[in-house]
Amino acid sequence: MSNPLPHTPLRLGIAGLGTVGASVINILHGKADVLAAELGRVITVAAVCAREPGKDRGLDLGNAFWFADPVEMAQSSEIDVFVELMGGAGNPAKAAVEAALNAGKSVITANKALLAAHGQSLAALAESKNVALLYEASAAGGIPVIKILREALAGNAVTKVSGILNGTCNYMLTRMEIENLDFATCLSEAQRLGYAEADPTADIGGFDTANKIAILTSLAFGTKIDVDAIYIEGIASITSLDIKMTDELGYRIKLLGVAERTPAGIEQRVHPTMVPKTSPLAQVMGVTNAVTIDADAVGQLTLIGPGAGGDATASAVIGDIAEVAKGLTGPVFRLPSTQLERAPRAAMQRHEGGYYVRLNVHDKKGAFAAIAARMAQMNISLESILQKGNKNTTKGTGLAIVSVPVILITHATTEAAIREALENISSDGVLDGSPQVIRIERG
Amino acid sequence: MSNPLPHTPLRLGIAGLGTVGASVINILHGKADVLAAELGRVITVAAVCAREPGKDRGLDLGNAFWFADPVEMAQSSEIDVFVELMGGAGNPAKAAVEAALNAGKSVITANKALLAAHGQSLAALAESKNVALLYEASAAGGIPVIKILREALAGNAVTKVSGILNGTCNYMLTRMEIENLDFATCLSEAQRLGYAEADPTADIGGFDTANKIAILTSLAFGTKIDVDAIYIEGIASITSLDIKMTDELGYRIKLLGVAERTPAGIEQRVHPTMVPKTSPLAQVMGVTNAVTIDADAVGQLTLIGPGAGGDATASAVIGDIAEVAKGLTGPVFRLPSTQLERAPRAAMQRHEGGYYVRLNVHDKKGAFAAIAARMAQMNISLESILQKGNKNTTKGTGLAIVSVPVILITHATTEAAIREALENISSDGVLDGSPQVIRIERG
Repeated sequence: MSNPLPHTPLRLGIAGLGTVGASVINILHGKADVLAAELGRVITVAAVCAREPGKDRGLDLGNAFWFADPVEMAQSSEIDVFVELMGGAGNPAKAAVEAALNAGKSVITANKALLAAHGQSLAALAESKNVALLYEASAAGGIPVIKILREALAGNAVTKVSGILNGTCNYMLTRMEIENLDFATCLSEAQRLGYAEADPTADIGGFDTANKIAILTSLAFGTKIDVDAIYIEGIASITSLDIKMTDELGYRIKLLGVAERTPAGIEQRVHPTMVPKTSPLAQVMGVTNAVTIDADAVGQLTLIGPGAGGDATASAVIGDIAEVAKGLTGPVFRLPSTQLERAPRAAMQRHEGGYYVRLNVHDKKGAFAAIAARMAQMNISLESILQKGNKNTTKGTGLAIVSVPVILITHATTEAAIREALENISSDGVLDGSPQVIRIERG
Repeated sequence: MSNPLPHTPLRLGIAGLGTVGASVINILHGKADVLAAELGRVITVAAVCAREPGKDRGLDLGNAFWFADPVEMAQSSEIDVFVELMGGAGNPAKAAVEAALNAGKSVITANKALLAAHGQSLAALAESKNVALLYEASAAGGIPVIKILREALAGNAVTKVSGILNGTCNYMLTRMEIENLDFATCLSEAQRLGYAEADPTADIGGFDTANKIAILTSLAFGTKIDVDAIYIEGIASITSLDIKMTDELGYRIKLLGVAERTPAGIEQRVHPTMVPKTSPLAQVMGVTNAVTIDADAVGQLTLIGPGAGGDATASAVIGDIAEVAKGLTGPVFRLPSTQLERAPRAAMQRHEGGYYVRLNVHDKKGAFAAIAARMAQMNISLESILQKGNKNTTKGTGLAIVSVPVILITHATTEAAIREALENISSDGVLDGSPQVIRIERG
C-alpha cells in the first residue's frame, strides 16, 4: 500500500506517570509492532514528566528524556505530541497544555476538569494552530463515546445524551440495592475497598459526572461548554427505602448525567434518576459506565464499558494517539469553536417529567387529603400512591412523633410545580422532615 | 480555524435508491449546513443510479446526473466518491466498486455479502490506489462497531467479538419467548409484518450473520476474510420448549455471531446460543442489534443499537462520507491488506464450552442410565439434568411411542465429545428423534 503518512516516528511526551500513564507506556511498548503496522509510523515515548522523577515505577522508559516541569516538556523540540495525564482544572495542567498548543504540538488529555473549565479557549487555541486536541479518556473512560459523537454521528441531530458516568456512584447504588445497605455504611465499605476516595465529594456529589456531561453536551449539541448551567444533585440523600420502593415499582436508581434538547433550551442535569429496569442503563451494575445517545437518524445507541482503570483509560488515550499519528486535525468539539453556539440554558424549574416523591406523613386525620389537594392544586396527577406499613418514630425531640412513609409517583409535570406543591405541603405541617424527590426517566 | 481541507465540494455518486439510498439523500439534504460546518466542505449528490430511473421517489435530487449503469457512474468524472447501496455479492455491485477504485475514487458500501466474498481483493485495490473503502453500514447497521474496531481500539488485542447481528432472528426469538409461539407460527407472523422476507433463508439460516461476522473477524484479529471457515447454524430448530427451559435455567437464546481467538486458532461461528440473562446481550430484545467486544486493554465494551432501517443505516453511511470528506485513507481492515494473516482456522470440533442438550428419551427402563454412561464415557460432566413432566406421543408411526423430554446441561467440554456422546446415545436406541444441542456462552 502506498502510504501518504510521514515515516518518521511520532514522539510523545507524557506528563503524569500514575496508573494511566504507566498503562499507556506499557501498552505502547507491548504493542509497538502492531501499532506501527496499523498507523504507518512508529510511536515513541520521547519524554516523560512526573512529580517524583527518581521513583522506580517498573516502566521501560528506554531513552526517554525526563522533565521536572511539564511546561518545559510541552515546549520541548524532543516531542511532537503532549499527553497530559496529570489532572486538575488549573496549573500546571492548564499551563502545560497551552504551552504545547502554542508550540504547535497536538495535545491528548484525560482531564475532564480542565476541559469543563477551559475547553472552549483550549479548542480555539488548538484550531488556530491547526493541531489536534483529543480527549477520549475524559468521559466514560474506555468507552469511545467522544469519537462516536464527534465522528460517527455526522448525519445526526442528537436529541439526548444520558449516562452513568461515575463508577463510584454506580458501585454504591448497586451494593445498596443488592446488600440492602444504607448510604453511610455503603460509603465506608466503598472507601475501605478503594472504590471511593477519602474525600468522596467529587464523586458522590455529582461534580465528576457534571464535568463529563459538560463535555458531552458540547459535542452532542454544538454548544459552548457551560458547566455553570448544570443542575447538580448527588446520591447522598438516597435511602435504602428509596431503593426498595423503586425496585418494587419496576425501576432502578442510577446517578445520571443528562444533556437534552428541550423546547426551553438545552437541559444539563446530574441527579439520581429512576430508570425502568428494562432500559439498557438500568442493567449496568457495579463500576461499569454506560451512555445512551438518542439521535434523529440512528435512533438510540447505548454504549457500555469500563469508566475507569489504568488499562481501560489507556485504551482511550492510545486511540487518540492513533488519530494524531494518522495526521488528523479538525474541530475539537465537532464544530469549529467559533461556530459553537451559546446555547439557551433550560432552567431546571422548567424540567418536565415524572417524579417519585417520598414523604414522611404525620399519622393524623386529614393528612392524606391535604397532600392530595396540594398536588391537585398544581395540576399534578398521580400515577400511584404507596404507603409502607412501617411507621417512623422520630427520636430525641422530646416528643415521639409518629409518621408513615408515603410514596407518590406522578405523571409528567414540571419541576416548578413539584417544588411548589411540596413547599405547600410542608407549610401545612403534615410532614416529618423534608420530602425526598427523585426524577423519573421513562425512556 | 485554519482549515487544511479542500474547499471544493465532495461529489457523491449514489448507486441504489432503495430505503437506505433515499434516507442518505434526505439526510444530506436536510443537514447540508451542519455537515459543511463540521467537515469543512460541502457534500453534494452529483449523480445517482437506480434500476427504475423514471420512478418518482419523492427525493430532491437537484441537478444530479442519472446513470442507468453503475459501472459507468463509478468511472464518471462527475463524482469523487462512489456510494454502493445496491447489495449482492456479485455484479453489478462488484464490477462497479472495482471500477470506482480503479478510477481512484473512494468507495462507501453497505454491502456485507460483497465484502465477505471479495473484501480482501477490494481492500488491496483500494490501498494500492490510496483511496478509502469504508463499510460501516455493512455490519450492525447504525452501530459504529467498525469504526470502533478499526480506530478506537488501536491499543488493544481483541480476544472475542460476539453479537446479535440479525434483527429478524432476534425479533423472532423475542416473540417466541414473550408470546410462547412455536417457530413456524412466529415466522409466518414475522413475514406478515414485514420483519422477515418471503424467502427467509439468509436471515434464519444464519448466513446474513455469517457475512457480518466474517467482516468483524478480519477487523478484530487482523486476519484475511474467510467466510468459508465459519460454522453456521440457524434458528429453525429452536422450539418453544427450548426457550421455556432456557428461561427456567436463567438464560436466554440469541442467534450470535462469534469470533474468538482460541489456542486452536480463530473460531468463527454462528449459532443459537444460551447467554445468561444478566449479560448485556441477553437484554437486547426485538429487532435491535448488539455487539460485545472483549479486548485486553479496555476489557469489555458492549454496543447496542438499530441493526437495520433506512435512517439508521444511512447514519452509518454518512459517518463514512464524513471520513472521506476529511481526507482519510488507510488500511481497510485495520492492518494493510498485505499484512493480514491467513489465520489458523479453529475446527468447530475443537470448540470448548457448556452445552444444553435436549433429548426425547424413550420411557423405558435403563434409558437414563445408558445416557449417563455415554456422557461419562466421553468425560462430560453434567451440571444439571431436568426432566419435563409432559410426555411426547409420536403419532403416525403405527406405533405410539412415548418419550419424555430430558434436558442436560454440561460443564465445559468439547464439541467433538458432545457429538460422539450423542451419536453413541442415538445408536443405543433410547431416543425418539434427534437431539437438540444449544451452545452456552457463560461470559
